[in-house]
Amino acid sequence: MTMIGSGNVAWHFSKMFKSIGIEIIEVYSRNQEEAKKLSIELESKHVGRLEDISIEGDIIVLAVNDDSIEKVATAITSKSLIVHTSGTASLDKISSLRSGVIWSIQSLRKGQSTDYSKIPFLVESNNQADSIALHELVSKVSNTVFIKNSEERLKAHLAAVIANNFVNHFYSISNEILEQAHLPFSILLPIIEEETRKVHTYKPEEIQTGPASRGDQKTIESHLNLIQEKELKEIYRLISDRIKKQHNDL
Amino acid sequence: MTMIGSGNVAWHFSKMFKSIGIEIIEVYSRNQEEAKKLSIELESKHVGRLEDISIEGDIIVLAVNDDSIEKVATAITSKSLIVHTSGTASLDKISSLRSGVIWSIQSLRKGQSTDYSKIPFLVESNNQADSIALHELVSKVSNTVFIKNSEERLKAHLAAVIANNFVNHFYSISNEILEQAHLPFSILLPIIEEETRKVHTYKPEEIQTGPASRGDQKTIESHLNLIQEKELKEIYRLISDRIKKQHNDL
Repeated sequence: MTMIGSGNVAWHFSKMFKSIGIEIIEVYSRNQEEAKKLSIELESKHVGRLEDISIEGDIIVLAVNDDSIEKVATAITSKSLIVHTSGTASLDKISSLRSGVIWSIQSLRKGQSTDYSKIPFLVESNNQADSIALHELVSKVSNTVFIKNSEERLKAHLAAVIANNFVNHFYSISNEILEQAHLPFSILLPIIEEETRKVHTYKPEEIQTGPASRGDQKTIESHLNLIQEKELKEIYRLISDRIKKQHNDL
Repeated sequence: MTMIGSGNVAWHFSKMFKSIGIEIIEVYSRNQEEAKKLSIELESKHVGRLEDISIEGDIIVLAVNDDSIEKVATAITSKSLIVHTSGTASLDKISSLRSGVIWSIQSLRKGQSTDYSKIPFLVESNNQADSIALHELVSKVSNTVFIKNSEERLKAHLAAVIANNFVNHFYSISNEILEQAHLPFSILLPIIEEETRKVHTYKPEEIQTGPASRGDQKTIESHLNLIQEKELKEIYRLISDRIKKQHNDL
């Protein structure tokens, strides 16, 4: 395997594949310092120029940022399978004969020890043999691997942004409101923990509670009266309406 | 203590106060069957009519729904401290000489064993002596008790609705999107768990990640292109804008 990149994903994917006995024969990165460091850690070779990478590696992993995938892929003349690692870039950013994707749903941070077996992965390729091979390969690391096309992967990425980044922003909004009442965010941790426990067992729509799901318009109005910010009022209204609608449809 | 009500809160508050040695001398509820059951469980007396409740109990707890608080409180002639248990109803729904509130931030479900020490409570009263007494009383059960006025309590309630009910709806939206890609919700559980772990240590705004916080307009556009539903598009846009704004302000 050849690793292009030296950031978070390159670091983790290298460790991960090494742990299942795959040799990282060489590392290239625009950031030569980081590439050298990584190649030493991996007991691998560091390559100074992209055009010098070996064309014999069975898989070339492009762990580079989304905007660089196309350019880097085009610069590689190898007939090996070239895979990128992005959640949003479509497969056809790589125009080589054999192309693929390995996407880790969990975001990875260099140096942080991680249990790869619990991370869900989506893989795909432009040919069935490589799709199956990638699925098999990543399954040696993770218990949860799916073959999914680029649109399905983008949907999973959107779902992750909503369930993670948007949820975090809601916690942030809650914290802003609690600060107005001179209360610490920690008073919400028990209900956050309980919610996290519940979604392990139940579908989220089945456990929806709160004023909107029970049609408690009086509480909704008193909340809206508390919110001064126009945008937040609108967010509150839209989400409450969506919950109400979902609940009426049940 | 006298308990008015026989629902989830009445059940738990009775158990909770009994566990710290407080005698529930009588139980009244509109739902006579449930009140009888609860009074048997508590080895307490069941009172059939509201006007027959003893006026000697030191605290009368109105664990009734928000719309009934005012009516029930008015029907009680006792000079005891009368407290309601609502997160949203203001203190002045009780017009008696001594009034108060004990609100459990965690929602309680009858029959479910609960560790009350971990539940945060907000208390208040129309007089300082009772505020302090309520704080002292509930502190025998819970490690986290704050004296807060009605507006502060409503803010905490709003924060809880956002961090719990709205977050659950986001999980529900994520699940809808994953279903379109024939993927199970369980692939999001690791990132949900990680987020829950993180907010125990960091302020939510400090750990904001995702396309909006890094100003990745390309990913935002590709997500928006995926979303067909007008309302959801608007929710996505408003929240991304708010994250962007928050991040530019940092």
